[in-house]
Order: sequence, then C-alpha cells, then structure tokens
Amino acid sequence: MKVSKLVGSRFKEKPADCVIDSHALMVRGGYMKYVGNGIFSEFPTLRKITAKIENIIRSEMDAIDGQEVLFPVVLPADLWEESGRYDSVGSELLRFTDRNNAKHVLGMTHEEAAVHLVREYAQTYTKYPFMIYQVQRKFRDEARPRAGMIRVREFTMKDAYSFHTSQEDLERYYAIAYKAYNRIFQRAGIPEVVTVASDSGMMGGSLSHEYMLLTPVGEDSIVLCNECDFRANMEAAKTIVENQPGQAEDLECIETPDCKTIEDVCGFLKSDVETSCKAVVYQKNSDDTYVVAFVRGDYEINETKLRNLVGEEIHPADITEDCGLVAGYIGPYQITDKAEVYLDVSLKGIRSMVAGANKEGYHYKGLNLERELGEVTYHDISKIREGGICPCCGKPAITIKRGIEVGNIFQLGTKYTKSMNMQYTDENGELQYPIMGCYGIGVGRLAASICEAKHDEYGPIWPISIAPWEVEVCCLRVDDEETKKVSDEMYQKLLQAGVDVIYDDRDVRPGAMFSDADLIGAPIRVVVSPRNLKESCIELATRDKSYKEMVPVEEAFDAVLKLKQQLFDDINAKVEAYE
Amino acid sequence: MKVSKLVGSRFKEKPADCVIDSHALMVRGGYMKYVGNGIFSEFPTLRKITAKIENIIRSEMDAIDGQEVLFPVVLPADLWEESGRYDSVGSELLRFTDRNNAKHVLGMTHEEAAVHLVREYAQTYTKYPFMIYQVQRKFRDEARPRAGMIRVREFTMKDAYSFHTSQEDLERYYAIAYKAYNRIFQRAGIPEVVTVASDSGMMGGSLSHEYMLLTPVGEDSIVLCNECDFRANMEAAKTIVENQPGQAEDLECIETPDCKTIEDVCGFLKSDVETSCKAVVYQKNSDDTYVVAFVRGDYEINETKLRNLVGEEIHPADITEDCGLVAGYIGPYQITDKAEVYLDVSLKGIRSMVAGANKEGYHYKGLNLERELGEVTYHDISKIREGGICPCCGKPAITIKRGIEVGNIFQLGTKYTKSMNMQYTDENGELQYPIMGCYGIGVGRLAASICEAKHDEYGPIWPISIAPWEVEVCCLRVDDEETKKVSDEMYQKLLQAGVDVIYDDRDVRPGAMFSDADLIGAPIRVVVSPRNLKESCIELATRDKSYKEMVPVEEAFDAVLKLKQQLFDDINAKVEAYE
Repeated sequence: MKVSKLVGSRFKEKPADCVIDSHALMVRGGYMKYVGNGIFSEFPTLRKITAKIENIIRSEMDAIDGQEVLFPVVLPADLWEESGRYDSVGSELLRFTDRNNAKHVLGMTHEEAAVHLVREYAQTYTKYPFMIYQVQRKFRDEARPRAGMIRVREFTMKDAYSFHTSQEDLERYYAIAYKAYNRIFQRAGIPEVVTVASDSGMMGGSLSHEYMLLTPVGEDSIVLCNECDFRANMEAAKTIVENQPGQAEDLECIETPDCKTIEDVCGFLKSDVETSCKAVVYQKNSDDTYVVAFVRGDYEINETKLRNLVGEEIHPADITEDCGLVAGYIGPYQITDKAEVYLDVSLKGIRSMVAGANKEGYHYKGLNLERELGEVTYHDISKIREGGICPCCGKPAITIKRGIEVGNIFQLGTKYTKSMNMQYTDENGELQYPIMGCYGIGVGRLAASICEAKHDEYGPIWPISIAPWEVEVCCLRVDDEETKKVSDEMYQKLLQAGVDVIYDDRDVRPGAMFSDADLIGAPIRVVVSPRNLKESCIELATRDKSYKEMVPVEEAFDAVLKLKQQLFDDINAKVEAYE
Repeated sequence: MKVSKLVGSRFKEKPADCVIDSHALMVRGGYMKYVGNGIFSEFPTLRKITAKIENIIRSEMDAIDGQEVLFPVVLPADLWEESGRYDSVGSELLRFTDRNNAKHVLGMTHEEAAVHLVREYAQTYTKYPFMIYQVQRKFRDEARPRAGMIRVREFTMKDAYSFHTSQEDLERYYAIAYKAYNRIFQRAGIPEVVTVASDSGMMGGSLSHEYMLLTPVGEDSIVLCNECDFRANMEAAKTIVENQPGQAEDLECIETPDCKTIEDVCGFLKSDVETSCKAVVYQKNSDDTYVVAFVRGDYEINETKLRNLVGEEIHPADITEDCGLVAGYIGPYQITDKAEVYLDVSLKGIRSMVAGANKEGYHYKGLNLERELGEVTYHDISKIREGGICPCCGKPAITIKRGIEVGNIFQLGTKYTKSMNMQYTDENGELQYPIMGCYGIGVGRLAASICEAKHDEYGPIWPISIAPWEVEVCCLRVDDEETKKVSDEMYQKLLQAGVDVIYDDRDVRPGAMFSDADLIGAPIRVVVSPRNLKESCIELATRDKSYKEMVPVEEAFDAVLKLKQQLFDDINAKVEAYE
C-alpha cells in the first residue's frame, strides 16, 4: 500500500467533538468516520486493525474448541419473547416491524439465537460440552453514545456461548475461557488489562468477570485493594462500614427550617454527617411503587446493587403531593407503608442519628434504628469508597480507578435454557436443562482502547500484532533519484518477504510525512533520505521512539526483519510469561 | 475437528418446505437453521464455507487494488434522503425509528455510505481512481424469500465501489473487475457461471452485467443466442419482431359478446392472435395515473422495460368505473386521454389487426395503427421469446434458460455523486462529479449456488477451495484397535500438515458414517477398516465418485496430500485457462 493511494484523510486540528485522545487521533488519522449518533464507518486503516484483532480472537476461540457460527443481526421478536427479554430489556433493544407488520429486534447479544441454533442438536448428554461463537454486528440503542468507538450503538462483537451438563464443567471451561481472554489481550498488545469480578446485570446468572483497561478516561469505576488481589466492579464490591457506635440519646423531633440537604441539617443541628441518615427515592418501572433507600449521609447509593435487591428495574422517583412521602424530610421512622424501604449497611451500629421526621420542616435527632423500629435488616446497597475496607483482606486499602471494559465472561446458568425450554437427556435418561456460559469482546472498542493505552501526542503507537502496517517506508526526497531507487527497492523486498508494509513516496515535506507516519502508527519506520544515503545508511526507528539507529543500506532489509521479529517476540514473551 | 463434536445435526428425511435440492441438502446436512422468514443462522459447517468464500473474494478484491472498509448496517435516513432512495425504493427497504424517534434504514446496499465515507477525502483528481469494498450483513425486506439461502432477507454481501474521473477510466476498471469476478467464480469451483448484460434497475446507471449460474431452479430468466455470444437478462434483451404485413382492410366495430381474453376474441372473429393487440394496464405509484401498454396478443409485457420507459415505479392497475377505461375492451384507437399509452414493437407493421374498441362488448377489426392514429412510436416493452430474433446476430436463435444471479457489476455513473454532491477539482481547477462503479457478490447465495451446481442425491460435492473440510477420515471400526490406531495417526498427521481435516471416529455403522460424510461433502475421503488393513491398505476416494483406490498404508498420507494438490491444481488450471 502506498500512502498516496490510502483512502482516508489525515489532518492536524483536533476535532471539537472528541473528548478522549483515542477518538481524536482516530478521526485525525483517517481511521473512522461519523455516520450518525453512535454509528461509524471504518476507513481501510481501521479495518486492517479490526481484521487483525478478529483473527487473534478467532485463533484463541478455536484453540479452546470453539466452533464459529453466524447468527442473524435481525431476529424475530418471538425468540426474545421466549426468553422474556423482549419485555424486560429497556429501550436499548431496538424493536421494529417489517413490511408484513411482524415484530423484530436488532440483536444486541445472541443468547436466544444460540439456544435456538443448538436446541435440537444437543438433546443428549453425549453432545456436551461445546462452545459456539460468532463475529457479528450488534446494535444497542444507547441513550448516550460517547468517546468515539468506546461506546457506540452499532459495533462488531465476538460473542461466544458454551453449554454444559454440570456447574463443575462450566467452571472448568470458564477457567479455560478466562485464560484465553487474557491471551487475547496479551496478543493484542495490551497486557495492562486487568480482570474484575462484576455484576452480571441483565444477562442473568451469577459469577462473571470483566476485563478492564485501566485509564482515567474509562467510563467504569473499578475497585482495587492496595493490600491484596481484590478487584471488582463497583456493583460487585461489597461495602463494609465500621461505625463508631457512640452514645444512645433520647429521640427528639426538631424543627429544621430551610435545610435542603443532609449537610444543611447536620450543620444546623451541629451534628456529624457520619451519624446522619439520608433518603434516596426511586420508583419501580413496573407499577411506580416507591422504593426508599436509606444510607449514611456521606455515602452514595449504588443503583445496580439496589436494582438487584428490588429484583426489577427502577428509576429516580417523581415525588407527588399525595404519595405519603415528604420531600426533604424523609426518614426511616414512621415512614408511609406505601413505600418499600431498604436500609444500607452504612447505617448499622449508629446509636444516635439525625434523620428526616416524615413531617414538613422537621428532623429527628437521637434516632436509634433498632430501638425505634425493632428488628432491622441492613442491605449492601451503597458504593464502596476510596480508603474503604477491602471485603477480601479486611484492610482499609480500597482504591478506585477508572477503566474501559474490553471484554466480559459470564456464568449464565440455566436462565436461557429454562426459559426457552432447551433440554437434554442425561446418563440416567432424565431430562435436564443445560448450563451456559457466555463470553464477549467488542472488536472496535478493543481497537480504540489499544489506541487509548498506546499513543503519544502525535498519534497511536500500535502494537505490531494489530498494527495496520508493520513497517512504513518513508522516501524523504522522491525527486532524488538514488533516494527513490533505494526506497522503491526496500518497499518491494519487504512486500515480497510478506511484511505488511506501507510506503510513503509522496512529494511532501519531511515534517508532513512524519506527521502522517505518526498518525498511521506503524511500529517500525524506515527513513531513506539523501543525507543518510551520503553515509550509505538508512534510518531505522520504532514508533514508540525507544529505538533509532542508522543502518548500512546493505544491512537494512535484514535489520527490518529482525526488528519485526523482535517486536513479535516481545509480545509472545508476555503471552508466555502469563501462562 | 471430530464429527462427534461438530455442532449441527444431519438427517435423512427431506424437509417438507424445501423446494430446491441445495436447500434440502443444506438443512439435512446441518449447515443452516431457519430463524424467521428469510432469516437463517449458519452452523459451523456452513460458516467454514462462507469464510473460505469471503477470503477468496477478499484476495481478488485486494489484487485489483481494492481497500477493505466497513460501513454500518444501520444507516440514518438522511443519507438515503440525500440520494433520493429513501422515497424511491419500495418496502424492501426496511425503515424504522430509534429510541429518539430518529429515522433509520437497514442497509440493503451501501452506495450512499460509500459516497459519504470518501466525499471529503477525494476532493482532488490526484486521489482517483480508487476502489473500496466491504464484507457486511445486508437486509432486504423481500416480499417472498425462497429457496433457502438463494433469496433471503438478511445476508452477507461483498459490495465494492470504485470512483473515477472519466467514463473511460471507469470502463478500464470495469473490465478489470469483470475479470476478477470471473476469477472468483473459477476459484470457488463453479466455472459454469456465465455473464449476461443486465438492466441496472433501481441502482441507476447504464451498463451492467450479471453473473449467472445456469440451473433449472434459478429464479431469473436468461436470454442466450444459439448462433452467437449474445447473453442478456430478459430486461436487457431487445425484442425484435418481424411481422407479416398482410392486407389492409376497412375498420369495423363488431360486437364481441362474452369474449374475456384475446384468444376468445380471435376465436370469435376467426382472426389470428398474431394480428391482435392486447392491453395490459398499470398505474403509477406516485399519482395513480393509468399506464396502458399494448402488445401483440401472443407477446407478454416486460414490466422492467416498461418501468424504465415510464421513468418511475408502476403497479398492476385497479380499473375503476369512472376511469375512462373499459376493462376487457381496451384498444389503442379512441382511448381516453387520461391514460398514458405505450405501443410495443411487436405491433409494428401489422396492417390489419383486432383490438378493443373502448366500448363495452365491442372490438375493432381491420385496425391499422398508422392509418387510424397518424404518427406512431413503438417501444421495446415486451419479453423476448424462445426462438426469437437475436438482437446481436439477427438470427432466429434465441433460447431462454433459468439461472441464479451470483454476482453483479454496474457502471453507476454520477447518480450518487450528483445527488449527494460529491465533487473534486480536476486538472483545470474545475469542479466535477466522480463517476462510480459498483460490484456485488452475495456470500451465502454463492455457497448455496455452488451446492446447487455441485451435488448428487446424497449430498453436496464441495469444490476443495471452499469445502468445509478438504479431507474426511472415516474410522470404520472404532472398536478395532489397529483400525483406530491407523485412523488416529492419519488424522494427526494430516492436522500437523495443515490439511483441513475432519475425523469420524464415532461408533456407528458404516452406512451411517458414509451418509454423514456425503452430507458433509469433503472432496477427499480416507476410509480405514479392518478389511482394508488386512491387505495393508487404506481406501482413498473423492466425493464426486470419480476416483477410488486402495493405497498401501505407508503411502496413504503422501497420496492424500498429492490428491489434495491435484484437486487444487485442477481449479487453478481453470483459473489460468480463463486468463
């Protein structure tokens, strides 16, 4: 490929609408083009990267006995009605009708399609275990697409589904898939990816892990322990709070005028926010029942934990006049019985607290939950905090980082096989539901994440395993006969040697050529110029600027091959070190 | 891969809903599964075939300087509004709204997306020519999906778009793409594919070709000449009719009671159907204007030709009482001026004909179009017939065959660049619209077409270049130690040699094993059995039954490799012979 023929423009100005570096660089470098909200086209440079990523993923899936299949993007609604997700999933599931008014959806994941495909095939235990996977487009009607290819609406995803006859067998395979995923990220050149335990949310099932690339621009919060190996998603990190019990006091109902926030109230009452109780109010999506969550004044509710506890979708409440709740003065004592009430663990053990009195303009002081309410159940519905207690080692060593989720694996259990009535006959002739696992990686998001993890101010620094081109040859003076000749020969020899090489023989200034090369991000650069040729040398350098050397012309070709091999060896060494 | 682990069931019974062999075999062989009307999932066996086809296509597109890109499946309606196709394309274009009520379509082709991608990139003549292509899912809301993977609603397609600065350059590249397409079909193992000139219909543009696999189950009619190389689609084949002029006669208006068809009228009037004129009535989709097409009684209207002449979409008419047309008695003389009237070439030169009198119960006899109407223009709006006159060599040697369209190429012209305002600056500094070509192949349809062209009653006979597996090893007696050992070794050695091999070591009867092998269709079969081993031999055979030999055990591995090489050589020889 010649740069002069490469479809896609490169430019200097940072696009106004790009909030993260990878997005800006991938727009500036001619990788992607905005088509619509959360919808992009891939230019050739990006398509080469995503193709290489897809091939790495395929080889690792094949290596763990995966069989590639293909499910449709457009799925009849009845499949999703069978699993119950046609109704349970929100508006991110795109629903439409065809010319005959038949209901369809755009596949956002393919559990239903997977069960549908193998339901008749896998009717006896002898067919198990097996894993099928596909690389296919998906559509999720995200409310807020953002950050370029990080959170989009349409994307290419590798999704895999395994089927087992026992939980033990699922766990055995899950461990194998867990490793294969780590190999994929190592091979793609981002060993920085960490795994965290996660909440499996709408997928159903129990145990799951997310693969997170730690980066300040990530949209997910990740909980890590500085003292042990504990890593989890916010949703999956158990909050532990050890309250100073303090002295019990008499309950008093006090007028608290113009106190809008819990901080106002505590200030007014000269009370500590750590002995206060605040209310956060939601409503169930199904019937608008009020759900009131109480949490220590300085903690926050984690909506996912609360949603899992409630057992259905909830949304922030619209507090009406006649609902029995007194906005700004809601407390756990003498609250209306029209609302479901949940108390967070952060309130446990406080003998005397400030809380709303469920009466306009009044708060309680000296509230003691056990004394006032009798038996009390506390739930883990708050967010763990920086410096909090690690649920694994018990030390106050929690730290919170940001990350991009680049993959996930789930132990699904029998959610889909039961709802879709997929059964097999076991060794005793009895009917059983298979147990499923599922395993996803977004291809475009991974490409963007690699760019986010590997770039400098000038452009991406692609790992050689997924780089659009392994080598770029720069002919610095196309009008100089010798320079052109040596450049042409180098390009042709590399092509013939099977090196994935791009050649810039345009008549442009060196500065422009190097800027473009930085944006293209080939890990190896070969620069041929009249000045170097005077010394009978060619300049050989790596994109990450860790290496730059003058190499005699006659040795340059071999040196390029050697450098290429070394960069691949570096990646393979990390893959092996991980094993 | 072992047959025992291969996901997908094979069975004997022909499915009731399969009208063509390839569909039945691909269902019986565990290749595909019905998900919804015109929507299928691919089992691993088919996915291996489609992946190999995709790779052949990619290598040929890359060889003609194609650059792979990726467009979204979901496209904002505004792109299609720019080109005008949002309104002009019928209900096969699936339109829907997202959660924010924004209008979208599912891409059925990607001309708009292609222009959108390169519109800013290609603003000067120096960027031209170039070609971009993708392999992507498409959705067409077909009214009547049929024949398995032949006519579906969702499918994988390779679509390519080239951009040029002159018609000459487009034609130069078009010829190159034409050849690349032939190479693709040669390499995929179906040299039987022929090219035909075609009508480019809704794609716009002028010249186009279709690649047709001739088969009686094809849904398209193809016009061929027995005397010359003329080949065309029905729409593109000019109809030539040489009428015997006969004697002019006086015009008479005659009562023709109870004559419902043109044959009834001719019988009643003792007139020849070859000197009769029948009417076929349509209405414009836009404003319901009546369009009356007159054709010789024994010819048929070709709706595509008529549509192109009218210049917009039409549909069969609903003849109302007050529309001025008298159903059953419509004729070209004294017809209402509310209708647009077109006369087919098949009426030219008849001096005395029978035609409707535009009066309930009456026909004309002795009608002479030139005499009665004055100046008359004839149009080519009828279907060419078996035995008709070849528009190329002029001999009455036309024959009509059926075919499946497996690819198409179009000279699009400036339809999309003009409507979407894509311009470049030419060498003189003037703004010009680029000229486009486009080039499509349906991957799944090609797989099914190959099956249709290459099968026997037992299953598909896959060409080795696209076969799911190149070799199948059958262990006929897994309980026999020596048989199992020799089979295992052969499988392992072939795997290590990079042969794409499937191994059947199930404990099943030979009949069942061979039936399955026939359905899997690997071109080479290696059969290991106690009986053959007694002779120190292994049986080596081809799926097409043209070759079967006993080979000494120690020579068998080399013999398999040699046979594999020979089958590939056979295909390559055809590719080269074509060059």
